[in-house]
Amino acid sequence: MTKVLTMGEIMLRLKPPVNERIIQTTSFEANYGGAEANVAASLALLGEDAAFLTKLPSNPLGDAALYTLRGYGVDTTRILRGGPRLGIYYFEKGASVRTTSVVYDRAGSSFAEAQPDEFDWPMLLDDVDTFYFSGITAALSPAMASALQAACGYCEAHGITVVLDTNYRGKMWTPAQAQATMKTLLPHVSVVLAHDEDFEATLGIKAFDGDETRGIEQVASFEAAMREVQRRYPNIHTVGSILRDIRSVEDSDWTALLLQDGTLSRAVTHHLHVMEGVGSGDAFGAGLLHAMRQGLTGEPLINYALAASVLKLTIQGDINLNTDAEVKALMNHAGAMNR
Amino acid sequence: MTKVLTMGEIMLRLKPPVNERIIQTTSFEANYGGAEANVAASLALLGEDAAFLTKLPSNPLGDAALYTLRGYGVDTTRILRGGPRLGIYYFEKGASVRTTSVVYDRAGSSFAEAQPDEFDWPMLLDDVDTFYFSGITAALSPAMASALQAACGYCEAHGITVVLDTNYRGKMWTPAQAQATMKTLLPHVSVVLAHDEDFEATLGIKAFDGDETRGIEQVASFEAAMREVQRRYPNIHTVGSILRDIRSVEDSDWTALLLQDGTLSRAVTHHLHVMEGVGSGDAFGAGLLHAMRQGLTGEPLINYALAASVLKLTIQGDINLNTDAEVKALMNHAGAMNR
Amino acid sequence: MTKVLTMGEIMLRLKPPVNERIIQTTSFEANYGGAEANVAASLALLGEDAAFLTKLPSNPLGDAALYTLRGYGVDTTRILRGGPRLGIYYFEKGASVRTTSVVYDRAGSSFAEAQPDEFDWPMLLDDVDTFYFSGITAALSPAMASALQAACGYCEAHGITVVLDTNYRGKMWTPAQAQATMKTLLPHVSVVLAHDEDFEATLGIKAFDGDETRGIEQVASFEAAMREVQRRYPNIHTVGSILRDIRSVEDSDWTALLLQDGTLSRAVTHHLHVMEGVGSGDAFGAGLLHAMRQGLTGEPLINYALAASVLKLTIQGDINLNTDAEVKALMNHAGAMNR
Amino acid sequence: MTKVLTMGEIMLRLKPPVNERIIQTTSFEANYGGAEANVAASLALLGEDAAFLTKLPSNPLGDAALYTLRGYGVDTTRILRGGPRLGIYYFEKGASVRTTSVVYDRAGSSFAEAQPDEFDWPMLLDDVDTFYFSGITAALSPAMASALQAACGYCEAHGITVVLDTNYRGKMWTPAQAQATMKTLLPHVSVVLAHDEDFEATLGIKAFDGDETRGIEQVASFEAAMREVQRRYPNIHTVGSILRDIRSVEDSDWTALLLQDGTLSRAVTHHLHVMEGVGSGDAFGAGLLHAMRQGLTGEPLINYALAASVLKLTIQGDINLNTDAEVKALMNHAGAMNR
Amino acid sequence: MTKVLTMGEIMLRLKPPVNERIIQTTSFEANYGGAEANVAASLALLGEDAAFLTKLPSNPLGDAALYTLRGYGVDTTRILRGGPRLGIYYFEKGASVRTTSVVYDRAGSSFAEAQPDEFDWPMLLDDVDTFYFSGITAALSPAMASALQAACGYCEAHGITVVLDTNYRGKMWTPAQAQATMKTLLPHVSVVLAHDEDFEATLGIKAFDGDETRGIEQVASFEAAMREVQRRYPNIHTVGSILRDIRSVEDSDWTALLLQDGTLSRAVTHHLHVMEGVGSGDAFGAGLLHAMRQGLTGEPLINYALAASVLKLTIQGDINLNTDAEVKALMNHAGAMNR
Amino acid sequence: MTKVLTMGEIMLRLKPPVNERIIQTTSFEANYGGAEANVAASLALLGEDAAFLTKLPSNPLGDAALYTLRGYGVDTTRILRGGPRLGIYYFEKGASVRTTSVVYDRAGSSFAEAQPDEFDWPMLLDDVDTFYFSGITAALSPAMASALQAACGYCEAHGITVVLDTNYRGKMWTPAQAQATMKTLLPHVSVVLAHDEDFEATLGIKAFDGDETRGIEQVASFEAAMREVQRRYPNIHTVGSILRDIRSVEDSDWTALLLQDGTLSRAVTHHLHVMEGVGSGDAFGAGLLHAMRQGLTGEPLINYALAASVLKLTIQGDINLNTDAEVKALMNHAGAMNR
Repeated sequence: MTKVLTMGEIMLRLKPPVNERIIQTTSFEANYGGAEANVAASLALLGEDAAFLTKLPSNPLGDAALYTLRGYGVDTTRILRGGPRLGIYYFEKGASVRTTSVVYDRAGSSFAEAQPDEFDWPMLLDDVDTFYFSGITAALSPAMASALQAACGYCEAHGITVVLDTNYRGKMWTPAQAQATMKTLLPHVSVVLAHDEDFEATLGIKAFDGDETRGIEQVASFEAAMREVQRRYPNIHTVGSILRDIRSVEDSDWTALLLQDGTLSRAVTHHLHVMEGVGSGDAFGAGLLHAMRQGLTGEPLINYALAASVLKLTIQGDINLNTDAEVKALMNHAGAMNR
Repeated sequence: MTKVLTMGEIMLRLKPPVNERIIQTTSFEANYGGAEANVAASLALLGEDAAFLTKLPSNPLGDAALYTLRGYGVDTTRILRGGPRLGIYYFEKGASVRTTSVVYDRAGSSFAEAQPDEFDWPMLLDDVDTFYFSGITAALSPAMASALQAACGYCEAHGITVVLDTNYRGKMWTPAQAQATMKTLLPHVSVVLAHDEDFEATLGIKAFDGDETRGIEQVASFEAAMREVQRRYPNIHTVGSILRDIRSVEDSDWTALLLQDGTLSRAVTHHLHVMEGVGSGDAFGAGLLHAMRQGLTGEPLINYALAASVLKLTIQGDINLNTDAEVKALMNHAGAMNR
Repeated sequence: MTKVLTMGEIMLRLKPPVNERIIQTTSFEANYGGAEANVAASLALLGEDAAFLTKLPSNPLGDAALYTLRGYGVDTTRILRGGPRLGIYYFEKGASVRTTSVVYDRAGSSFAEAQPDEFDWPMLLDDVDTFYFSGITAALSPAMASALQAACGYCEAHGITVVLDTNYRGKMWTPAQAQATMKTLLPHVSVVLAHDEDFEATLGIKAFDGDETRGIEQVASFEAAMREVQRRYPNIHTVGSILRDIRSVEDSDWTALLLQDGTLSRAVTHHLHVMEGVGSGDAFGAGLLHAMRQGLTGEPLINYALAASVLKLTIQGDINLNTDAEVKALMNHAGAMNR
Repeated sequence: MTKVLTMGEIMLRLKPPVNERIIQTTSFEANYGGAEANVAASLALLGEDAAFLTKLPSNPLGDAALYTLRGYGVDTTRILRGGPRLGIYYFEKGASVRTTSVVYDRAGSSFAEAQPDEFDWPMLLDDVDTFYFSGITAALSPAMASALQAACGYCEAHGITVVLDTNYRGKMWTPAQAQATMKTLLPHVSVVLAHDEDFEATLGIKAFDGDETRGIEQVASFEAAMREVQRRYPNIHTVGSILRDIRSVEDSDWTALLLQDGTLSRAVTHHLHVMEGVGSGDAFGAGLLHAMRQGLTGEPLINYALAASVLKLTIQGDINLNTDAEVKALMNHAGAMNR
Repeated sequence: MTKVLTMGEIMLRLKPPVNERIIQTTSFEANYGGAEANVAASLALLGEDAAFLTKLPSNPLGDAALYTLRGYGVDTTRILRGGPRLGIYYFEKGASVRTTSVVYDRAGSSFAEAQPDEFDWPMLLDDVDTFYFSGITAALSPAMASALQAACGYCEAHGITVVLDTNYRGKMWTPAQAQATMKTLLPHVSVVLAHDEDFEATLGIKAFDGDETRGIEQVASFEAAMREVQRRYPNIHTVGSILRDIRSVEDSDWTALLLQDGTLSRAVTHHLHVMEGVGSGDAFGAGLLHAMRQGLTGEPLINYALAASVLKLTIQGDINLNTDAEVKALMNHAGAMNR
Repeated sequence: MTKVLTMGEIMLRLKPPVNERIIQTTSFEANYGGAEANVAASLALLGEDAAFLTKLPSNPLGDAALYTLRGYGVDTTRILRGGPRLGIYYFEKGASVRTTSVVYDRAGSSFAEAQPDEFDWPMLLDDVDTFYFSGITAALSPAMASALQAACGYCEAHGITVVLDTNYRGKMWTPAQAQATMKTLLPHVSVVLAHDEDFEATLGIKAFDGDETRGIEQVASFEAAMREVQRRYPNIHTVGSILRDIRSVEDSDWTALLLQDGTLSRAVTHHLHVMEGVGSGDAFGAGLLHAMRQGLTGEPLINYALAASVLKLTIQGDINLNTDAEVKALMNHAGAMNR
């Protein structure tokens, strides 16, 4: 089995227990996660041979992050060690009308400080047929954007598929910066994921009017944006996107669109009681990639990816702890028994 | 006050805290429960003189199971001690579209290995006017089915009412096996509880088409099945059944039907936010039995049983920790104050 | 900045974790709260200079209550120390159709036993421009009602605004007792809060028919009652009231009315998934007071107060841990993102 | 089997977890205990038929206290229900040089407020051959002392053995008050337990010089005091006493003396690492009583009682959760394996 | 780097939190461990390439056990899947004079039920230079003893070193059974570990008089037994043994002896405050093996093994979470700073 | 009452629960502490008017740190807000022979990045009579050393006493750097605290040979070093120092020396079972300062300071949660009762 390599930052996630706020808590639940790490772990749990590339400090926090991923079956042998620290994000889950709030403390992390010449691409991409990263990695530093450039170039030269989750983070860069960087990467990419404001912020193509309570009715606008992506970058054969109506922290409807070589498919709509919204985009990416590698296309493909994504909404922690069988069970069965 | 005796297996229930999955948890909440044990404990809390019959290992796990029931007021003096182990079930609560998952580890338990001649029915049924068991006990082993045979025979000969919750478990036996065993027991039974697939699997009478998102609209089919039960077994004067629309792990509507000597009554419908689905059938059985012993019939009877059942959906642990006053309060009041 | 002084009892609140019932729990979460303490803490977090007046025992429980308030920024220098004990309330949160249940254990507390002559009003009300208390304080004892009488008299004489949350507690006194006491206090009051049965029980003016599942449709009756309050006590220039449709412990809609010098304003309606109902009236009072002091009137004023109130429903513990910025964010934005 | 009845107050015990102090904790571990309740529960776990007499409020706290004892096998059918509240004690465990600290909040409890005429002694003492209480019960109120007078009189008249643990509590009464009350009870007593300052405070006989770091070397003085007890009250055939060298919260040596009809026996000395000091006197009383009922005398008797007592020092919660087999194992084996 | 393969059963370990007893606990801490699994994990953390061989059920419990080991770096690719269940052991930690108590619930586990022909030795031992197992594996079933026979034969034929930790368990077999089985395995073994009663029970050579409070003074007797082992089995070039004075659950002294080709070495003595005694023998085995592979002999070798062993006594869970650097730091430094 | 101002960094402290290691934990206990913050909080709890000066980020972590100190009574009104982040330290408590391990993650914190011109000394030192800082603050950055220079100069010019805890941290700077900086500060200082390697590393005066298992026998060398400090800096009228024999993480003896204007006093020796070693130096500093302000000198002074210090060893979290009465109780009483 050939390998998928994902590249990005994994952080310590600190979350107050049971809906407490940061200012009142006396303990934090500790998890380790990050967009591309989540994708690697989910791929491994779905049955893929997945490796993760990052740089971790040589201390117990770095060890714990590595052990977590290795436990779920991720190949961690390509991870670099050293540098100053492990990044952190504080995750304060919202409830009802109180929105979830995240405090990032990731500046100066070992991965963010890594330099392009630390990455030996021929060795790191050996045996790899798919390379996956998100806009977060590109946003970390100009050095990291350079490293991605080198990696994408190597991939194109060696027939390795590149998957990009655009994953815009307004706390890390501006749309102008994001678009400038993305323009240098997109010509190498085959599969693109973009949701909500990602289209406009990272691709400069408006799909979403910003009203998250009625995303699903904007399906035509999303489709147009997806087609525009393929028009601009004919190398991108697949575009996937989640659409949501978010009524409160807990209560939302989710569907998804897939554009494959000009053909649009739409997933069913799931009505959801959300436990934890973090990582559902990563679960979508892993699900889409796994289903593609299993040979699915069109509606089954997008339904699989969406089922993986919404199952993540029921999981504590960044990583989608669901198996291929569980994703398929949800695809084949709308309701859910309570025993 | 005469006594109700329930007979069955009580297990250690291990549940990951706060919606964690088994593969990620570092601790389990420990409860002790099982269908007939739950019924006995609920009866005691509702005010009945209830005894429980099982066999428990002579170790601290067996002690803890016994102490739990005794604490809630169950007469535990008829419990046998000895044998190899206490059965376990791992309870992984689902959320939203992720279904609840149970791993049974009950093979080789002290109760499952018990032999018919260990049960001294004249002594065990002394002072008892009602004997309650479920299909789970019958499914445990041929020896246990024999023991139940002996008990039912003794009951019939001594005017002790027999109550059967059909409680089909597809992981324990096949419909063919269940029906064969039930046929030998049903002639001794006066009260039968059956829900969902129980009718078809244990009685061979189809009531439910398997679509749990729309059980309530199948009321006519349930009624027909209930009438057919009484037609076949005129000794069964009372049949009770729960009907549900289950939209997700948390979100469902519940109603219930009662057939008493040919007269059908229907309970009100409750809209519910389910905390824990386990044990609601047992709570229904205990509620029905207690209300019958209080002299209720018809609509009040089935409304009481259903109120007891849906209150269980708000409780952590197998046992329905609600009192007679609390069940009545729900019967008399639809809404619920949040202070 | 001049100061708001609130006066009342702060108690140790003991709550079983994660929806357990009192009879099954092996631990209690400990918080410190009480109507007027909650108001003071919320005011401090919203940016006001707020002081709290009570009497606390000279033991670690009294210390802990004081430290909690001081931590959130409340001026605790006017608190008296001594007396027998800290009052307690056991808070058993309901779920779905099981109602929340509270066991009070507050008799004989240091504050309830305090005598009028322990309160040196000129010193205690120095620098204060607003004095806030609720009907709970008045209900504690005839001595406490006398103390409030003295305080209100001093306020009126010195131009200090008096705010009264009528806050009827049927476990503490009867409507007749409440109305008799209130009649002596209301002539000194400028701002009155009353919800649900408060109008009838404490003011003798019927606003609400008792059906909490349909409070919002009774808006006309509430308006009439509010106008009647101003008619009887022209000194009361502002009346605020919350109206709710409560469908279950978790599920409800909330709106609010404001009558200011004869002009009625109505807030938007929030649909809510309630985490904890306690203290939402106190959060409303603090929000209303803060917004008034910021110069808001009419719809913005009542929308601010309601937003503060419903945000409290998402918080663990008695105190509304939301800032002015967070209240405003909810006012300006209906939905809520889950990341 | 005839029955032992113990009489006293059972309280909710609230303890901060893991050595936290009250002023910093955000939760309390909840147990239910009290001197005589602990004795009843330990007796039941050792195999005796033990009943407990108290008065509990008709609320979930009272229920929980009752369920706890019933779970461990105590006959709770003689418990009265009603009255204002359940008493509480806050237990802040010390460590090393920081002493353990207890805050009592027991005033006004249902039991403390109970009146002598609520106790129907012929019914309560039916089937009982031994009546056990401690000085704490006598100290609660003059009414309770009267009730004990009546009980002791009934016992003497009906051949029921009375056991008294003198158990002096300086926070409840003075030595003068204690001695005055004790003088009225001691003529009815057959077995007396007294430790440390109990001799002087409750009996007016000095045994201990107050230096708890060197109690064991004062053995001669303890023996003299024990003999003086028997000299003054020839009806007291048995006196038991624990002697300790307490070097820190964790580190101490324990031994014990027994005077039976003039013959002194001394137990071995145990070197201990104390987990929780509460309830070791109660465990001693239960151990002594059980061993006497088993027919032990002299050294085996006092060694059994002491082994029971020091095993309690390894247990969380007020009740000595050790069985007869475990006590005997310690008697017969000095060391302790760590696997 | 060549590989070490260890073979045995890994179980779910359930432990009440913070010194609670099983009969009182409401939760269990969950770990996964077992003698040979612990050795493999410790070897991996010390820097070896270690693989573990067992059979795990195809359910989430089996997954969790596998993920745990894989996380710590164990090669889990040779683990068989299938069979009925994961074995359990309940671990009730003692304190002071209360001994630790273990309830095994391992009968019928997937590994215990595995048959010799499920083990394809040429494949399983490929790339392996050391094979490690303990007497526990041999005791599981005659089938497992046969499997070990086959493995040992294959090892001898292919120059793979066999290491045996005799690890006698009186709850699994008798000395006679143990010795009969061991006689068939010992001729293939090169390294033997034996402690305490292991010598007599599994080898029929008395070393220890059974008094665990004074094991260290029996050093001469241990030495004689170790020499006798080498005399009987000249193929055994190395024998290692721990000697202890155990004064209580927490308080003990540990030393160790090593006999290598006739030369005896003795380790320093550590005075210890034990947190958890489980797995210290496994930590010793892993330490000894790793140090041997690093080329250590004599005193440094046995000091390394003992340091690894006693560090385990400070760790929660079965697995010795200490690195090579930490073991060496203890070897080189007696004391321990508290910051 | 005049005020003490302490200045330094407060961090989030993350500690795995119950002796877990960082690599295995799934949660961290959260406290907020740092040398000078601990001193301020302890002073406040001892009864002083204490203020703390630092810079905290404008986010919930900064709020929580501030609220914690304010809760314990520290004047937090002089704290600056802004900058990038709150520093963190991970605290992995050791046990027995496993040493405690700390991972610092404090680079780039708001306080470490603060510039000298942000500190308006006339305003910050208004009403202050004592200024306290430790070597940690000086080590943070050259800018911070400059700020301290300015503060010390201002203090000297305005008669404000300067207290310095030398507090050497080898992870922050070298002895050469420390000594160079200290030389510029010491001429302004009146009271110096130095323990263990502090003398040599920060003052260039050898007192301690590095063997922490036998610090107390080096009393003569410590005395000589203390006298040398006063010889070099006659402005330093008081030098305090702790001496320890540390046998393991839990087990140690502590004493202390005080040199006041040439007169040496020695404290009693405490034998301790340490729960948590962090912050005992800060507790010593606060104790010394409070006792000096109470007018104590000589032996009572150093005994008070040491009693405060060793009481901290029994407390969870960085802050010494003991009152003046509790410190005095330990001074007056060697042993400790376990009830």
